Amino acid sequence: MKRSDLFLKTRKEVPSDEEAKNAQLLIRAGYIHKEMAGVYSYLPLGFKVLENIKQIVREEMDAIGGEEMLLSTLQHPHIWQSTDRWDDAKVDVWFKSALGEGSEVGFGWSHEEPMSRLMTQFVSSYKDLPVYAYQFQTKLRRELRSKSGLLRGREFIMKDLYSFSRNREEHDKFYALVEQAYHKVYDRMGIGSITYKTFASGGPFAKYSHEFQTISDIGEDTVYLDETKKLAVNQEVSADEVLQELGLERNGLVEKKAVEVGNIFTFGARYSEPLGLFYTDENGVQQPVFAGSYGIGISRLMGLLAEIKSDEHGLVWPAGLAPCKVYLASLGDEEEVRRQANDAYGYLTDKGVSVIYDDRDERPGEKFADADLLGIPYRLVISQKSLESGGFELKKRTSTEVTIVQKDGLSALLTKAGQA
Amino acid sequence: MKRSDLFLKTRKEVPSDEEAKNAQLLIRAGYIHKEMAGVYSYLPLGFKVLENIKQIVREEMDAIGGEEMLLSTLQHPHIWQSTDRWDDAKVDVWFKSALGEGSEVGFGWSHEEPMSRLMTQFVSSYKDLPVYAYQFQTKLRRELRSKSGLLRGREFIMKDLYSFSRNREEHDKFYALVEQAYHKVYDRMGIGSITYKTFASGGPFAKYSHEFQTISDIGEDTVYLDETKKLAVNQEVSADEVLQELGLERNGLVEKKAVEVGNIFTFGARYSEPLGLFYTDENGVQQPVFAGSYGIGISRLMGLLAEIKSDEHGLVWPAGLAPCKVYLASLGDEEEVRRQANDAYGYLTDKGVSVIYDDRDERPGEKFADADLLGIPYRLVISQKSLESGGFELKKRTSTEVTIVQKDGLSALLTKAGQA
Repeated sequence: MKRSDLFLKTRKEVPSDEEAKNAQLLIRAGYIHKEMAGVYSYLPLGFKVLENIKQIVREEMDAIGGEEMLLSTLQHPHIWQSTDRWDDAKVDVWFKSALGEGSEVGFGWSHEEPMSRLMTQFVSSYKDLPVYAYQFQTKLRRELRSKSGLLRGREFIMKDLYSFSRNREEHDKFYALVEQAYHKVYDRMGIGSITYKTFASGGPFAKYSHEFQTISDIGEDTVYLDETKKLAVNQEVSADEVLQELGLERNGLVEKKAVEVGNIFTFGARYSEPLGLFYTDENGVQQPVFAGSYGIGISRLMGLLAEIKSDEHGLVWPAGLAPCKVYLASLGDEEEVRRQANDAYGYLTDKGVSVIYDDRDERPGEKFADADLLGIPYRLVISQKSLESGGFELKKRTSTEVTIVQKDGLSALLTKAGQA
Repeated sequence: MKRSDLFLKTRKEVPSDEEAKNAQLLIRAGYIHKEMAGVYSYLPLGFKVLENIKQIVREEMDAIGGEEMLLSTLQHPHIWQSTDRWDDAKVDVWFKSALGEGSEVGFGWSHEEPMSRLMTQFVSSYKDLPVYAYQFQTKLRRELRSKSGLLRGREFIMKDLYSFSRNREEHDKFYALVEQAYHKVYDRMGIGSITYKTFASGGPFAKYSHEFQTISDIGEDTVYLDETKKLAVNQEVSADEVLQELGLERNGLVEKKAVEVGNIFTFGARYSEPLGLFYTDENGVQQPVFAGSYGIGISRLMGLLAEIKSDEHGLVWPAGLAPCKVYLASLGDEEEVRRQANDAYGYLTDKGVSVIYDDRDERPGEKFADADLLGIPYRLVISQKSLESGGFELKKRTSTEVTIVQKDGLSALLTKAGQA
């Protein structure tokens, strides 16, 4: 992408109507646009980051047998009434709207009910199970206060997977697979070492649910970590008897703030029974389908990564999530510089390396500041001075060291960029 | 994909609550699920078709300089009040919901206003123009009656592109480029020869807008075709003076029903002025940005293709849109058959050919009927009989001719499948 073709403007000043650091940075860097509190649009570079996050999650969900699909946003009251989750007194985040005379529709804030009901069409025998279906879906929630940027929105993007199994044993096997897949997701995003499997409150079909909590001062949750066991307990379930049951010593635990980046939940027959999702087992006996749900907040991860992978100069995307690998800046208007910059841009693009080529007539300081603010993993500078030094100046976003690379050296760069 | 791993059930009977042929077929084939009138969820195979349609449109929009992004669903009343399109008396398809005390949000049924307002942050000088931004977006519309399946939904997926230009001349150049890109899209979907650029009513900034109408008896629109000039006129603007102006002879026109599959529209300063989208030109004079919008109904195209690319046996997807290229069916339970079927599945998958492998213990008739109903371009059958004939039976969905291909012949199949 040539910078002159991108509709992108960075800002030095912090937007006055935005309190959250993640949104401030993403707005300043031209990744998102605030529509209203808790509601953001994704600009071209932000959209690429979002798609990169989705792609990592998609690969890991596909690898454990997930089938991607897409449920509707509009929700019929009937199916939510059957589980007693339509009434505003029971669920206070519903957006609802009039449809025709006296009838209403809701806007999906979660999708257990429609997914379970849909499965009644596809599951009748034990031979139809298990099923693992997931989607990336824009969820809408009537949050009255919303001031954490992408961390808690009225409109946000979530991956929600639902498992439908014959029994608890089959369910437990998949549940463990998801747990591994989630760890892979967080590792690939560079937050594996600070993300803990966390015990949280369960429900009628499971004593505990599990959250994945990333340690960060901006978190809304308080967790107690056992750093050697790589486990955590959410404050809400941190009573003495729970710690004892989990084999944790209160003295060995560290209290931290954390952001919930995923959750996995066993709900057994909780939705299957009221929605009529039953199957006939090997002995001809009708059984409720045993279900679970597995969420990852996609836009929340984008906000969290913006917040914790950043420094005083701006964003610092992990290579797999950045909207491109290289920020190529040409400095000065000498013909030779311009020619070599165009060459390098063509060369890298041909090799499949994504590049923002800052071809604008701007001061070097502006271009360097933008490369940093945007958080692109590699900065490649071409100027009269760099050419006199024998090539192009290469700097990683995470380092201050500048090395001179030659045209031939750019393929080494490719390799490095691929590994970063 | 192994059929035994897919959650997919086909139905012989037509769903009783569905009037539209497109939705009946797609439901019977397990591509979509009806949530309520005009609202459908996309099951794994249907989701793939949707993504294939989007990918074709994406490639053609990127090729003319479009930048992909994603606007929000939730809409703030304020920006729509400034163009007088918030009031239900002016726009009768709004879904609206209470937010907090006395405040409301809307749900995006179109996005001219938020896109124009967003651009005020990125456009101030002639140097910032032109900008071409697009998205694939789930639109929500309060249609009181909805019974055309995917052709007119309360929830549907649309590609909407917006152009922002310095002046009419710059706008007109891009408008012509979009027209060419749209013809490429329809050609790639196999409906190019029956899709006509159609003159329709314009507005204050353009005498006409242009629709792309695909001839079909199920269409809601009536158009008059000039088949030699490959042009059409919507009935709404087919007065004598219009025909004269366009150089069309009423006697030479054929009246047809048609489905609108795209539209391109010049709106000039209509939204720019009330939303404050101005730029400073080369002479330092402030000018309103000259804008246009360009829509393609993604889910509508899926419905239309299901409706017109089908026969008495089911769907007939064009190769570029089908959820996979080959339906591989093994017949009988002989060990050699099973072994060769597994071999062929592995071979094709390794070569990057997408396959549904019907490994179920079902009668041949069931498997053939499903291959036809699903509309997969190639059917490959392996049985004791086919092996005795020297290989695998290959049949195109659009043909009754069966040829015997050998293992080595499968790579020829790859080539054919790529071209189809």
